[in-house]
Amino acid sequence: MTSRLLLLGAGRSASSLIQYLLRHAPTENWFLTVADVNPAHLVPVLAAHSEYARAVPFDLADEAGLEELVSQADAVISMLPATLHPVVARACVRHGRHLATASYVSPEIRALHDEAAAAGVTLLMECGLDPGLDHMSAMRAIEHIRARGGVITSFKSYCGGLLAPAAEGDNPWKYKFTWNPRNVVLAGQSTAKFLENGHPRFIPYQQLFARTETLVVPEYGEFEGYANRDSLSYRAPYGLDAIPTILRGTLRRPGYCAAWHALVRLGLTDDSVNLDNPETMTWAELVAAYLPATQVPHLDLAQRVATYLGLNPVGEEVARLTWLGLFSDRPVGHAHATPAQLLERLLSEKWQLQPHDHDLIVMQHLFEFELDGATHHLTSSLAVLGDDATHTGMAKTVGLPLGMAVRRLLRGEVTQRGVLIPVGADLYEPILDELAADYGIRFSEEEQLG
Amino acid sequence: MTSRLLLLGAGRSASSLIQYLLRHAPTENWFLTVADVNPAHLVPVLAAHSEYARAVPFDLADEAGLEELVSQADAVISMLPATLHPVVARACVRHGRHLATASYVSPEIRALHDEAAAAGVTLLMECGLDPGLDHMSAMRAIEHIRARGGVITSFKSYCGGLLAPAAEGDNPWKYKFTWNPRNVVLAGQSTAKFLENGHPRFIPYQQLFARTETLVVPEYGEFEGYANRDSLSYRAPYGLDAIPTILRGTLRRPGYCAAWHALVRLGLTDDSVNLDNPETMTWAELVAAYLPATQVPHLDLAQRVATYLGLNPVGEEVARLTWLGLFSDRPVGHAHATPAQLLERLLSEKWQLQPHDHDLIVMQHLFEFELDGATHHLTSSLAVLGDDATHTGMAKTVGLPLGMAVRRLLRGEVTQRGVLIPVGADLYEPILDELAADYGIRFSEEEQLG
Repeated sequence: MTSRLLLLGAGRSASSLIQYLLRHAPTENWFLTVADVNPAHLVPVLAAHSEYARAVPFDLADEAGLEELVSQADAVISMLPATLHPVVARACVRHGRHLATASYVSPEIRALHDEAAAAGVTLLMECGLDPGLDHMSAMRAIEHIRARGGVITSFKSYCGGLLAPAAEGDNPWKYKFTWNPRNVVLAGQSTAKFLENGHPRFIPYQQLFARTETLVVPEYGEFEGYANRDSLSYRAPYGLDAIPTILRGTLRRPGYCAAWHALVRLGLTDDSVNLDNPETMTWAELVAAYLPATQVPHLDLAQRVATYLGLNPVGEEVARLTWLGLFSDRPVGHAHATPAQLLERLLSEKWQLQPHDHDLIVMQHLFEFELDGATHHLTSSLAVLGDDATHTGMAKTVGLPLGMAVRRLLRGEVTQRGVLIPVGADLYEPILDELAADYGIRFSEEEQLG
Repeated sequence: MTSRLLLLGAGRSASSLIQYLLRHAPTENWFLTVADVNPAHLVPVLAAHSEYARAVPFDLADEAGLEELVSQADAVISMLPATLHPVVARACVRHGRHLATASYVSPEIRALHDEAAAAGVTLLMECGLDPGLDHMSAMRAIEHIRARGGVITSFKSYCGGLLAPAAEGDNPWKYKFTWNPRNVVLAGQSTAKFLENGHPRFIPYQQLFARTETLVVPEYGEFEGYANRDSLSYRAPYGLDAIPTILRGTLRRPGYCAAWHALVRLGLTDDSVNLDNPETMTWAELVAAYLPATQVPHLDLAQRVATYLGLNPVGEEVARLTWLGLFSDRPVGHAHATPAQLLERLLSEKWQLQPHDHDLIVMQHLFEFELDGATHHLTSSLAVLGDDATHTGMAKTVGLPLGMAVRRLLRGEVTQRGVLIPVGADLYEPILDELAADYGIRFSEEEQLG
C-alpha cells in the first residue's frame, strides 16, 4: 500500500531531504507531495520522478489549504519556520497524521503531547542536525559508556556550521552564512547557563564571546567554542540529571569570537533600539557615534576603536572589523534601523556563500567518565563537507536524519506516540548506521586514560 | 457649579496630590472622589473633608465600575500604572471627560488624539516630575533665551530621585528607592541615543554606567549623570529640531554608577534568563557562578570579583558590592528567578526608605546659547526635600504639578483638546509660579559668559 508523504516547505535547506525522499520513494512505496510557496524551482527536480512525486503551491496563510493537504497525507514533514509548527502540528493531530521536523520542541508543541498520544499521532521533533544528530550521536556514546559500566562526570558538546578550508579564502572571519543570518547576529543575547564540577556557571552576553574554549577536530585543526544559552535542559532527556559538568556550545574558527566580542562591546549587535539614522549614514559615522567624544582627535577611526576597546590597533580583531568595512564611507543603506539590522545587512553581503564554496559541519562531543577506578576521556568528532552549493553540509546533516526518521516512522518502526525526540536507540541506531553506510557521515572516536 | 473630580489610584505617591486637591476643593467648588483598590487608608485623610470628598473602592478589573465612575466625573486624574491609562483614556473620550496623568504619552494614547479632540476632550499627559516639571521648567528657560534673541546650541537636562544628605547615612550607594524598584534595576537596558556637536552618539547598555558626567548642584554638591534611553525625542516638542547637542540623563550620587557598572558587567541585571536556581542558593554562590573557574583559588570572593572586573579589591566599587551582601552566605530567597529579580529583591531591603528618611529631588538643565556674538552658559537647578515619609519630595514634585494642571483644566484655562503635554506657556507659567509661591519649589539660575 502506498504511503502518502507531505513535505511542507522546500527552501534551499531541503535539497538533500528531497533527494533522499525521491531516492527511497519507489522502494518504500511512497507518494511524495512537496508543498512550497513557490514550487516552480521544484519542477526540474521532480520531473524524472512524476510517478511518485509532485509539487503543489502552498500559501502559509491558507489554513483550509493546509487542512486539505494534511488530511490527504499519511505523514507530514515540516521544513517551515519553527513558529509555524504549532499550526501544522494541530492539523496533524486533528487528522491523525504523524509529523516530523528538525525544530526544537516549543512549549506550544509540548502542550500537544497528551492530545497527540490519545490520537495515536507521533510528533517527532528535533530530528535535524542541531537539534537532531547531536542527540543521536551523544546518546549512542552515552549508552556505550554506560554499557561498559562507566559513570559520566563531564559532557561537553559543540556544533558549528562553518566553511571548508578552501572556501575560507581571504575572509579573516573564516565564516559565511549557511543558516539564518539574523540568528547568527543575535546569537547568545541572554545569559548562558551550564554546570562545571557540580557548580552552576553563568556567562552574561557581554562576556560570552570572551570566554571560549579551544577544540581540535581531526583533519580540520582548531576551533573555538562559546557556550549556548541553556546547557542545563539537556540533562533530563539524556538521563544525566546528576552529572557534575555539562556544557553545550557553538563552534567558530579561532579569532572569530574575539572579533565578535569587539562588535558586542561596541554595541553593534543590539536589536532593541531604532537608531533614527538616515540611510546615507556611513559605517564610519555609525562606529564613531559609539565612541566617547574625548578620544585623541588625530587618530584614525580604527585606532580610536582599538584604543577604546583596549585592542592592538594592528591586531587580528581590528583587521577583521576593517575587512567588514566598519571604518569605511560606505552607507549603511537602511534608515531608522537597529544596529543589529544594519550589521545583518552588511554581513549578508560580506559573508555570502558563493556558488563554488563548500561548507563544513563540525560536531564534537567530549566525555569524561570513571571506569574501574580510572578517568577516561572520550572524544567523538564529526566533520561533513558540502558536496556543492545545493547539497551543502548543512542541507545534508539537517535533511538526511530527518528523512531517515520519517522512513522509520512510515515503516511502523517508531511505536511511541505523542511528542518525541530521537534519544531512543530504536531511532538513533538505524539512523546513525544509515548515515555512515550510505553517506559516509560517521563520528570518529578517540579515547584515552587519565 | 460644582466640578466633580475623580482620582483613580491613591498609592503612596498620591499623598501630596490629595492634600493639594483637598486644600483647593472648597474654594474651587470641587467634589473629589478618590477611587482606590483599598480605600481604608483614605478614611482618616478624608474624614475632615466629607462635604467635598469621599473615597470609594475600585477594582481595576471592573470595567463597568470604571465606566460608571468616569461618567459621573467632570475630570479624571489617573495615578494608576501607566499600562492602564489607555483603558481609562478611552472611557474618558467616550464620556467626554478630561484626563490628566503624570505618565508618558504612549503610542496607544497618541492614537486617541483625533478622537479626543473631536469629542472636546483634553488628555493632558506628562504632568508630574519627569515627565512634567522637566518640560515646564525647560520650556520656560528656552522661551526666556529665545525672547532675548539667543540661539541655543546645547541643552543637557538631568533629573534624579535621591536622598537628603542626612538620610544617606552609612549607605555607600547614597541611594534608596523612592520610585518603582524594578525600573531602577532595569534602567538603561537599551542603547542610549543623544546628539553632541551635531553628531549622533550611541552608548550601549554595557558601557552606559561607565560614561557619566559630573554635575554640581548649589548647596547639594556633586552628582553624576548617565544618559537616558532617547534624548532625541525631546527635540520636536521643545522646538529644538536643529540643536547640535541634546542629552537627557538620570542623576545619582558620585560612585553609584561605577558600582552599578560592576553589577551590569557581572551580569546581575539581566532579566532575560531564568537561572533555575534553588531559593537556598546563597549570594556568594550566585556571584561565584558568574566568575570564570580559572581564577586563583585561594582568593576570597570579593578579591576574585575585583580581579575579574579589573577593580581595586579595597576600592569603592567592591565596598559597595560588599555592603549589599553580594559576597555573603545569605540565601537569594527566590527559586527559578532571573538575576534582575533576585537583585531587586535584595535591593528592596537594602535600599528601603525608612520612616525618618527624607528624600531629595534634583533637576538640572544646562544650556549653551549664542547671543550677541558671545557664548552664554545658563544652569537652572532645582532641589526639593521631602517633608516626611508621606509627603516625600517625589510625592510633592509628581503630585503638585499634576494637581495644578487639573486646576487649570477645570477652570477652563486650558483650551487645547486632544493629547497634550505641558510645553505651552498657558500651562507652565501659572504652574511654575504657583509651585514657587505656595511651596517654595523654584529653580535657581546661574548664567555666565564664555
